[in-house]
Amino acid sequence: MLNNEMTAKLKIKYPIIQAPMAGGVTTSELVSEVSNSGGLGMIGAGYMTPIQIRKQIRELKTLTSNPFGINLFVPNEFEVINDDIQSANRLLNPIREQLNLPPKDRLEIPDFTTVYETFIEQVKVVIEENVPICSFTFGIPSKKVISELKKSDIILIGTATTVREAVENEKAGMDIVVVQGSEAGGHRGNFIDNDYKDNLVGSMSLIPQVVDNVSIPVIAAGGIMDGRGLMASICLGAKGVQMGTAFLTCIESGANKAHKDTILNVTEEDTRLTRSFSGKWARGITNNFILGMQTHESYLPEFPVQNTLTQDIRKVAASKNNKEFMSLWSGQSPRLAKQQTVKKLINNIMSDAEKIKTNM
Amino acid sequence: MLNNEMTAKLKIKYPIIQAPMAGGVTTSELVSEVSNSGGLGMIGAGYMTPIQIRKQIRELKTLTSNPFGINLFVPNEFEVINDDIQSANRLLNPIREQLNLPPKDRLEIPDFTTVYETFIEQVKVVIEENVPICSFTFGIPSKKVISELKKSDIILIGTATTVREAVENEKAGMDIVVVQGSEAGGHRGNFIDNDYKDNLVGSMSLIPQVVDNVSIPVIAAGGIMDGRGLMASICLGAKGVQMGTAFLTCIESGANKAHKDTILNVTEEDTRLTRSFSGKWARGITNNFILGMQTHESYLPEFPVQNTLTQDIRKVAASKNNKEFMSLWSGQSPRLAKQQTVKKLINNIMSDAEKIKTNM
Repeated sequence: MLNNEMTAKLKIKYPIIQAPMAGGVTTSELVSEVSNSGGLGMIGAGYMTPIQIRKQIRELKTLTSNPFGINLFVPNEFEVINDDIQSANRLLNPIREQLNLPPKDRLEIPDFTTVYETFIEQVKVVIEENVPICSFTFGIPSKKVISELKKSDIILIGTATTVREAVENEKAGMDIVVVQGSEAGGHRGNFIDNDYKDNLVGSMSLIPQVVDNVSIPVIAAGGIMDGRGLMASICLGAKGVQMGTAFLTCIESGANKAHKDTILNVTEEDTRLTRSFSGKWARGITNNFILGMQTHESYLPEFPVQNTLTQDIRKVAASKNNKEFMSLWSGQSPRLAKQQTVKKLINNIMSDAEKIKTNM
Repeated sequence: MLNNEMTAKLKIKYPIIQAPMAGGVTTSELVSEVSNSGGLGMIGAGYMTPIQIRKQIRELKTLTSNPFGINLFVPNEFEVINDDIQSANRLLNPIREQLNLPPKDRLEIPDFTTVYETFIEQVKVVIEENVPICSFTFGIPSKKVISELKKSDIILIGTATTVREAVENEKAGMDIVVVQGSEAGGHRGNFIDNDYKDNLVGSMSLIPQVVDNVSIPVIAAGGIMDGRGLMASICLGAKGVQMGTAFLTCIESGANKAHKDTILNVTEEDTRLTRSFSGKWARGITNNFILGMQTHESYLPEFPVQNTLTQDIRKVAASKNNKEFMSLWSGQSPRLAKQQTVKKLINNIMSDAEKIKTNM
């Protein structure tokens, strides 16, 4: 069950996908080490320019001859509303002051058309550079984009947080679907439901219900950190796992030191959902920023507007190792996180999985 | 792994515990059928009088010679505040009017001392009637209660929703701990954390983190409906499962028909947490009552005050099969629920589990 149609399709040895964490985590060292260790390394390219993407793909090809993949954010339509930006800035300016940042009033934010055009450029680079696998978060690309990627024999992976979203991914022609349980850290990949925070579904419930309703391979994501999580996911009907937090604390990951250290020192009770950092719901470790913004979070601008607004705050907080104002994305299993090499992580997962199989 | 120290301790054939759902679900037919089919049947006695408890225990002994257990609610201190009751009634009276119920102003509610005395009476009956297994929800009983139960060789099962709560259960002398993931239907068993709703932990994360931190056997609960969930739980390190919703829709369960029918017709997106029915957080299928009370739910009286206040509403709604004002407790896997006999459910779980083992 650990070697199956999914591992065959992706041409990987082990059914382990490194989650495409955006924002500097997926260094070429991390991605190549995952692929070289038998898993699937993924570039989290959501926030990257087409030029940066091309550069990293080329670099990766010198570091691994195994397959790797890339993840893109499907742009959702959004509006830039100046009044909302000013209200948000009124909440953010006291934080800026604490961090010795200048206050802000308005902000130059690219509009939806510009964001969409960048997405199309990103897709073009993926095709031109022959990346074998491309995954999507926050939605399903247009028929045109899908058909162009398919013409180039690129394997497509969608993201779903409900059965309905998984079914839509299959209908649209995705080859594989990553199913994100409520345990998952970072951004929620939901794209159908808006009244969202109150009915996130846990993996134990979500995976088998999705498996019963799609025929493409399902990858379980959320809270999976070791061989136990891998084997549990396989029992629930998944063909493999996608792991974020477990790779984030690895030596090779590009995550900020304060971010890694915080994950290594908190418990399963310490994460919560917030939309205050980016305008989209995401799970991170509770800190002053999340708590301070909590009562306002329903009224903040949407993604990517709010994300742009908080950029200066996140950046300076990271540079000062100030964990109270960074986005400390983490799934619900921080007690299982370790600082170790990718190779050791993957080897441990597979040897633990084999032990579980043997003792079954 | 399906026969282990937990099944040996409880003297059961299969590692399946029927969740002790309170409020009329756990008929003697249900409980005895579970025990007769190789699982552990449990009386949900939280709302039962000592006399009712004694009667059902005696009845069960005529229906099964296998072990069965009982669950009691550990009373938490509460205050009866008349102003809060009047505010709550102002919200509930328009609903009463819709259901042709008379409006209410004040209400006779037993105080904490009375509730606690009833609990001590319940414990006494459990001891006198030699029930071999007793589980607890909403807290850990006093040292005195625990030592009296242990003197009678009664096996004690605690309930936890976090690692901290599981550790407290072990320290207090519980023999086994049920660990309730965020997927679970009905009342949350939390008793340490109050700021609760925002950091519920999913089973995929919670089970292995608890297993790593206690040495007593862990039972997984929440969203488990079939052999896949059982095997996944075992992989995560649990020694067995406790299942509620899967038994609730069984032929033998005493749940209201409208309740069963609703579970059989909704999806994983349709449940949410509410404290509007009872004053404690619980997961149920979203209906008009939950939605209508949602903006007020943080201010409602605590358990059991709010529970007593909504009693007339829930009762008349149930009698009219009006699902909009009943507490439709359900876990997050309603798509996996079936109307079937207990025997068939348990046999299917075990044969599916064996198949998974074989194909591993």
